Amino acid sequence: MSSKPSIPKGTRDFSTGDMLRREFIFDTIKQVFRLYGYQPIETPAMENLTTLLGKYGDEGDKLLFRILNSGDFLSAVSDEELVKKDPGILSSKMCEKGLRYDLTVPFARYVVQHRDEIVFPFRRYQIQPVWRADRPQKGRYREFFQCDVDVIGSNSLLNEVELIQIIDDVFGRLKLKVQIKLNNRKILTGIAEYAGAAEKITDITVALDKYEKTGWENVKEELISKGIESDVINKFGGIIRVIDKDNKEKADYLNSILVGSAAGVEGISELKALMSLLEKTALNSEVIFDLTLARGLNYYTGAIIEVKSSEVSMGSICGGGRYDNLTGVFGMEGVSGVGVSFGADRIFDVMSSLNLFDRAGSSSTRVLVLNFGEAETEYGLKILGKLRKMDVSAELYPDQVKLKKQMSYADSRKIPFIIIAGEDEIRDHSVRIKDMTSGEQISLSLSELDSFVKDRIRPAGVQI
Amino acid sequence: MSSKPSIPKGTRDFSTGDMLRREFIFDTIKQVFRLYGYQPIETPAMENLTTLLGKYGDEGDKLLFRILNSGDFLSAVSDEELVKKDPGILSSKMCEKGLRYDLTVPFARYVVQHRDEIVFPFRRYQIQPVWRADRPQKGRYREFFQCDVDVIGSNSLLNEVELIQIIDDVFGRLKLKVQIKLNNRKILTGIAEYAGAAEKITDITVALDKYEKTGWENVKEELISKGIESDVINKFGGIIRVIDKDNKEKADYLNSILVGSAAGVEGISELKALMSLLEKTALNSEVIFDLTLARGLNYYTGAIIEVKSSEVSMGSICGGGRYDNLTGVFGMEGVSGVGVSFGADRIFDVMSSLNLFDRAGSSSTRVLVLNFGEAETEYGLKILGKLRKMDVSAELYPDQVKLKKQMSYADSRKIPFIIIAGEDEIRDHSVRIKDMTSGEQISLSLSELDSFVKDRIRPAGVQI
Repeated sequence: MSSKPSIPKGTRDFSTGDMLRREFIFDTIKQVFRLYGYQPIETPAMENLTTLLGKYGDEGDKLLFRILNSGDFLSAVSDEELVKKDPGILSSKMCEKGLRYDLTVPFARYVVQHRDEIVFPFRRYQIQPVWRADRPQKGRYREFFQCDVDVIGSNSLLNEVELIQIIDDVFGRLKLKVQIKLNNRKILTGIAEYAGAAEKITDITVALDKYEKTGWENVKEELISKGIESDVINKFGGIIRVIDKDNKEKADYLNSILVGSAAGVEGISELKALMSLLEKTALNSEVIFDLTLARGLNYYTGAIIEVKSSEVSMGSICGGGRYDNLTGVFGMEGVSGVGVSFGADRIFDVMSSLNLFDRAGSSSTRVLVLNFGEAETEYGLKILGKLRKMDVSAELYPDQVKLKKQMSYADSRKIPFIIIAGEDEIRDHSVRIKDMTSGEQISLSLSELDSFVKDRIRPAGVQI
Repeated sequence: MSSKPSIPKGTRDFSTGDMLRREFIFDTIKQVFRLYGYQPIETPAMENLTTLLGKYGDEGDKLLFRILNSGDFLSAVSDEELVKKDPGILSSKMCEKGLRYDLTVPFARYVVQHRDEIVFPFRRYQIQPVWRADRPQKGRYREFFQCDVDVIGSNSLLNEVELIQIIDDVFGRLKLKVQIKLNNRKILTGIAEYAGAAEKITDITVALDKYEKTGWENVKEELISKGIESDVINKFGGIIRVIDKDNKEKADYLNSILVGSAAGVEGISELKALMSLLEKTALNSEVIFDLTLARGLNYYTGAIIEVKSSEVSMGSICGGGRYDNLTGVFGMEGVSGVGVSFGADRIFDVMSSLNLFDRAGSSSTRVLVLNFGEAETEYGLKILGKLRKMDVSAELYPDQVKLKKQMSYADSRKIPFIIIAGEDEIRDHSVRIKDMTSGEQISLSLSELDSFVKDRIRPAGVQI
């Protein structure tokens, strides 16, 4: 027991400084979600494995954290099964529950289970941790938070508009410049059909996705190696040539070549309608029609959305899209929707690298009242009461120790103001305030304290 | 897959209405914690089992949820061990991690692990779920939240004062009338010493605890059955007679009889000092010196605190006390502290049974803008932008469906105002607002909308 205790690999403790910064991010996201009429739900950390298994592919099944049944977990295992030592069979008999892997499957389960209480269209948000037994590495954890916002039971493009407004609003409040990238799954289908290789849509979108990094020659080679015919590749090359053009030029070009594909025509028309609605909403962020965007291709059926920082090189910090069938796997058909998920950890990293947290101290406490001993305590408690009534976070140093120690506590905690209220101050009904940043000391009567609090102490405490 | 999916027994989904109410409770608690200078931390849901095992007694060990190791979880199990089927041995070889059972042990682990970064006295709060494989029953769940607030590294009674102020402040903001019960472990030791049965302190405190429910005759019988001598029982009877007296009378009586016990004298003196400090803080709640209060006897070493609703019959809704040795089990001696834990689920139940949530709707949305079709959308988006800029949670019905359906959505969601902005309103630069509670309809110019929002729409939205 004398060796230092530790936590499981891939997990984290959040100390105060990080907590305050993370809460600032979560609170900002939540405020915006609510402002747009989205409602919170929460689901349990543990789900039945029947709910989770088979929803994330074989690889995902392996990454689920399974919870050993309580009591006699071997009761369902026969001796034969036991000696065979098949991990799959044994774990399925010893474990009924697992930790949630994302928020989408629990949300789908929730919708089916509560279908009779839910008012559709259902606008919900959910901010909770998820767990994955991934190999931990820089920026990848086994426990991390997801912030999902979805509206289901409505096909209107206005939902896409609002989600993009939400994205713009969140990052605006966080003071992050972002690019919002848009695409449409139907356009990708259209491109594959136009090129005469509808069945090769996955290869083609993977190639599109690589173009930016590797260039046309490499993409071409890859397509040839996949057995794609040269006239397909030529048509495809025509599309590649407009990839870097502006939104309108891209849309016009695709409009002209995708006339033969019903899906393509619909995709372009949705994209244009969305772009035109967005023009009416005065966004701060740049919106880019990015036809290489394909994330979660097999899941999304309409709009595809991804957000990147314009200032820091980092993977996407938010993404999502429209899907056709959220709950079919639980036997409830026809529930379509659209949603996005904010990546709190990456947003945190982007904000850190831009020093946007600079103003945040390691403390939320604004004032420390020094402890001069028992006789002064009553006066100290009175001042504390006054400060807290004005909504100022304040504390009295609890122990009567040397002032130097108390000052050094204020210093380490980055508490910006200290109040000295000793014998003299009690006699004069006054306090002495030291601004720990400037070193300035001021004597004030108790009645002057109020306006000092309003002018100097409170304002900086509003944000993080 | 066609049967309705469900969640593990003892766990809960929180739908929107409950979420908003719970968040109101958590936010209130958090605000007060911060106002008193306490700082948030969070620890991972999973801890190493070496951290958790042996900290909660044998019964607690059984109630831990264990997580099956990823990959080949049988690799550490020999064939011999396998066929022996000993659940204890097997689970310890197949599982390295478990879900946290409370917030105290993770906090102790955190303090030891981060001892070099922590500034003492360390005032921390932590609000997170915990998991226990208890048999689920009414009011007892397998996943529930704890809200702990502790200060460690200070022996000053001012910490007890502040925690009681926090309790008073939290319940005041929640509009709950409570009794705050106080005792001191040293007084209980003193009583056992005075009665000449120091080694029987557990029996005696259990008996004290039962007095209120069962009466003196039953308590007496129980003490006799435990082999406690009659002169001990007589002395004990003398104490029982003051149990229902007022705080001062009880303290004076104990003061007179406990003179021979060093612990007893110290306990009474601490209690009196605490009571006298509390008198200077203008509490709203009644504070009762309850010498039957013994919770967590083996853990607490000084003050013992418990809070009960004065209005609803329910177990304690908050409790805690002072402890001497938080982190000794992890090899770090001498870390004493004091803390309390708020029971969010019970607070929720008390508030529900007092109808304190009555004003809360099932929605945080204040305004629904009706959808009249594409031509009206731009105008609708403009109004939405205006409302949200004024911090009013608002939404536009996304689909162009019959107005009756849109109205019924507003009704089910309990959205208090709807805005009608059709052809006529666009022409007149106006809106029509319907107050869904009174049925009243008002026409306003766009410029008049601002003051209507300030006067009528926004105020009620401030609190749940």
